[in-house]
Amino acid sequence: MHRIDDFCSIIDKYKVIFFDAFGVIKNYNGIIPGIHKTFEYLEEKGKEYYIVTNDASRSPAQLAESFHKGGLKFIEADRIVSSGMLTKEYLDLKVRDGIVAYLGTTNSAHYIETSGLHTLPVSEINDTNFDKVNALIFLDDEGFNWFNDLNKAVNLIRKRPIPVIVANTDKAYPLTASDVSIAIGGIAAMCESVVGRQFIRFGKPDSQMFMFAYDLVRERMPISKHEILMVGDTLSTDILGGNKFGLDTVLVLTGNTLPKDVDTRIIATGIIPTYVCESAVIDPAKNLF
Amino acid sequence: MHRIDDFCSIIDKYKVIFFDAFGVIKNYNGIIPGIHKTFEYLEEKGKEYYIVTNDASRSPAQLAESFHKGGLKFIEADRIVSSGMLTKEYLDLKVRDGIVAYLGTTNSAHYIETSGLHTLPVSEINDTNFDKVNALIFLDDEGFNWFNDLNKAVNLIRKRPIPVIVANTDKAYPLTASDVSIAIGGIAAMCESVVGRQFIRFGKPDSQMFMFAYDLVRERMPISKHEILMVGDTLSTDILGGNKFGLDTVLVLTGNTLPKDVDTRIIATGIIPTYVCESAVIDPAKNLF
Amino acid sequence: MHRIDDFCSIIDKYKVIFFDAFGVIKNYNGIIPGIHKTFEYLEEKGKEYYIVTNDASRSPAQLAESFHKGGLKFIEADRIVSSGMLTKEYLDLKVRDGIVAYLGTTNSAHYIETSGLHTLPVSEINDTNFDKVNALIFLDDEGFNWFNDLNKAVNLIRKRPIPVIVANTDKAYPLTASDVSIAIGGIAAMCESVVGRQFIRFGKPDSQMFMFAYDLVRERMPISKHEILMVGDTLSTDILGGNKFGLDTVLVLTGNTLPKDVDTRIIATGIIPTYVCESAVIDPAKNLF
Amino acid sequence: MHRIDDFCSIIDKYKVIFFDAFGVIKNYNGIIPGIHKTFEYLEEKGKEYYIVTNDASRSPAQLAESFHKGGLKFIEADRIVSSGMLTKEYLDLKVRDGIVAYLGTTNSAHYIETSGLHTLPVSEINDTNFDKVNALIFLDDEGFNWFNDLNKAVNLIRKRPIPVIVANTDKAYPLTASDVSIAIGGIAAMCESVVGRQFIRFGKPDSQMFMFAYDLVRERMPISKHEILMVGDTLSTDILGGNKFGLDTVLVLTGNTLPKDVDTRIIATGIIPTYVCESAVIDPAKNLF
Repeated sequence: MHRIDDFCSIIDKYKVIFFDAFGVIKNYNGIIPGIHKTFEYLEEKGKEYYIVTNDASRSPAQLAESFHKGGLKFIEADRIVSSGMLTKEYLDLKVRDGIVAYLGTTNSAHYIETSGLHTLPVSEINDTNFDKVNALIFLDDEGFNWFNDLNKAVNLIRKRPIPVIVANTDKAYPLTASDVSIAIGGIAAMCESVVGRQFIRFGKPDSQMFMFAYDLVRERMPISKHEILMVGDTLSTDILGGNKFGLDTVLVLTGNTLPKDVDTRIIATGIIPTYVCESAVIDPAKNLF
Repeated sequence: MHRIDDFCSIIDKYKVIFFDAFGVIKNYNGIIPGIHKTFEYLEEKGKEYYIVTNDASRSPAQLAESFHKGGLKFIEADRIVSSGMLTKEYLDLKVRDGIVAYLGTTNSAHYIETSGLHTLPVSEINDTNFDKVNALIFLDDEGFNWFNDLNKAVNLIRKRPIPVIVANTDKAYPLTASDVSIAIGGIAAMCESVVGRQFIRFGKPDSQMFMFAYDLVRERMPISKHEILMVGDTLSTDILGGNKFGLDTVLVLTGNTLPKDVDTRIIATGIIPTYVCESAVIDPAKNLF
Repeated sequence: MHRIDDFCSIIDKYKVIFFDAFGVIKNYNGIIPGIHKTFEYLEEKGKEYYIVTNDASRSPAQLAESFHKGGLKFIEADRIVSSGMLTKEYLDLKVRDGIVAYLGTTNSAHYIETSGLHTLPVSEINDTNFDKVNALIFLDDEGFNWFNDLNKAVNLIRKRPIPVIVANTDKAYPLTASDVSIAIGGIAAMCESVVGRQFIRFGKPDSQMFMFAYDLVRERMPISKHEILMVGDTLSTDILGGNKFGLDTVLVLTGNTLPKDVDTRIIATGIIPTYVCESAVIDPAKNLF
Repeated sequence: MHRIDDFCSIIDKYKVIFFDAFGVIKNYNGIIPGIHKTFEYLEEKGKEYYIVTNDASRSPAQLAESFHKGGLKFIEADRIVSSGMLTKEYLDLKVRDGIVAYLGTTNSAHYIETSGLHTLPVSEINDTNFDKVNALIFLDDEGFNWFNDLNKAVNLIRKRPIPVIVANTDKAYPLTASDVSIAIGGIAAMCESVVGRQFIRFGKPDSQMFMFAYDLVRERMPISKHEILMVGDTLSTDILGGNKFGLDTVLVLTGNTLPKDVDTRIIATGIIPTYVCESAVIDPAKNLF
């Protein structure tokens, strides 16, 4: 039986904390009750923290706004690292002109627009602009007609030798306590298999997510990987990625990994967190005195 | 360079011929010009033939009717073996009562209805009939709303421990000379990956397709596998499956495998047909005299 | 919680029983205590039975001999269907002359020798006979030098466009109560991935194994699939294959599936046996009166 | 047809060049003739360069020595980034005490020894030290008995919940002009599949390799990804990894990608290099005047 550790005693040992968003500080019901105390504690103690999330459906500013509405007033946009930001950086560096076709909501696309590039939903690709498409991005599972636009995307990929980017590697996400939704990562994997090509994927467990956050920290202060803690609810993304990047890791049991399954899952996957905690909620009253 | 063989000389050596349908006797334009001569020749010579197809969207009777309309008057329903027939046999043997939920057109579902079972599109599953669903079948890529019904299907599979059957293993099919459509086999693979389970798949290259046809032949006459020839356009289904079942195989170049790619594909895949022919069309004038 | 059924009452309902060998009638310690009573009961009741095994390391005669030594006097060679037999049938039908190179013991190779074909261990392939090699078979994990002969096999496959056959699909097998051994199926999968080709695999869950046994039964008596029961210890081979072939299935808990894991594994895999029994051992004293 | 670019004109546009080793600056015959001129040119022009290699069989010092012997006198150890270095960093950060078991030569293991950790070949693991093993590393395909030690490693992984690290992701490497050798990455993938767990892999195309080199550059000078060029011979590692990290990339045709296949492979994989060059050898006589 894996030992359950006290979250507050753990964070006291680190200078910087990385948090996954979904399953750690919020879930399908909204902000996790009491989690604001954790961020108040971090502010009080002068510890740095970042949100490292596979969410590409909204910009950091929009994500921050949703945290503020839920009572997490401290979390600003510049504390948020999303797989969508890596997508944007990729486009800035590698796709210099033309059209970026996308599957997702207008909202998700607005955020990747950069100077010189024009974003267009796959539904609006036609004979007049087909040859100008220089990249295709899988952004979000909503905002398009799956039958029409996935078939259109598959044929676009077959005919144009362009990079195809998947801005979120998750296959599914929780919709309610009992239901999931197919995520854009799962849809992209289907298209990848149909066309027999390898797409470019951004998101945990890939190191690039952690490196992006690590670089942000290093711009503010000198830091060693030893001094950073990654907190997540999913073994195969948060913990595997954090471990591989060289960080200590905390698995919390408020999301994808249920308390009753934790031992079995750790043994079955061989993905071993440094610590296991019930949640990322701390009780400062208990812990400070 | 692989030798191109004469189709007519080859079929003279066998008693029974199995034909794939799509890419061999028809394509997106309809019946392949001249293919009727092949079937006239087979009738004249008294050779048995069967159509062995991964098409589960229509019943054998409907498939036969489409051949008749295209001028292939000899091909009757009892000569057609489809992956849909294996699905029907599975349901007869293994699902004794309750509802069979499906993704596909009403047409495709009508054909799998059997006494004792009630078929229902996934869109009509609700709280009142959820617990009576005893199987889910992926039949066809049309006839349902992908977004709504695929998400609904994924959650059904997660909650009900029922067999999930994929009636067509193809990932894509040609729609025009230049475009493909995502097939139900590709959609099913996405759902399989999202729920982390292994579905039951019917269709070439699986041996069960060939065994079904082989059993039909044996009911009419004593036969050895040596005396049967499989004719197909796809290395990974028709030729791999035929070879593994112990049949001699002909790859024809009127479908998925283009003349310019044939040597590369054979070497890259290691799937080696006994013969390669331009098409399954024979010219009796040339061959008989 | 899955109901545990009484094995004897179940077999009373069927005319023919198929048994997996390893984990059902024997394990690493030898014959499972008491299993002889089951076969005595079947003989007494006049029920047909077959052993359907992924073991290609020995011939049916040798397998039968090992059963006799363990006290299972009734099980004759003609009751045994092995993946090695499918390999032999494949060679008979598809490889008409030349050398069949193999990885495995001399014992395993002797058994696949057929008229017209010459078997040779991979270690003895050299410049003088390289061009005569017309097939390569992965037979057994013992009897060869892994480093030398696997590298040699990989280069043979890269240079000769020959069929490569895997005579046992298992990735590992139990060696003691706590240890496993890498099986030839796992080794073959590595070579397949290194050369990027698709090998021909024989063994459960593939239908061809069940069809071979089904054909043997039909030679003796008219039978429907409804009247056949498959008994196995492994969900992903015995139960998946049996279900797909249309047979009723019993999962026994004396091998790969432990009593404590049975519910979790059935739900996680979605492979649902018709029945679950503690073992295939019956107590006729209890069951007959 | 992909345009073949002039290597010298390309490097003039960048401040820093990353080179793959095998297939770019050396091959199975030793150092590629004329490649020393490229490094003389880079030195003369004051451009920074790094060797980014999936080779974990030797330390940077040993790799540098082999370059010196081949006439590449400028390439020092501090210019070399190997997947072995990432493995060493991982151990420093994440495995604080105990034994690190390994598969590979003594040479490869010496290099990962760090204070506080004791390395031991898998062959020397026994009952007395089994419980002290805190990590297992796949380092090299030589230096151990495949049959004995791979089986031993598989059982170690099954019983000890420890991280398993693969220090080289390649599945095979060229041994001569016509032969390949199975690499430790291929062997590790087999063990991963047998135990059903996900190992930690270091090596291109993973971003961590590029980040390690990028950090080394940034310690010396301010640099943007726009100013770095990655030169490699393999689409799936060098080019995919370089592209994803945001670098411009050159595919050279002196290694894994043959001139006759380059167009087909780029289209089939969808991995598109910024440039294609015959080799990384420049002719300064031609280019400077």
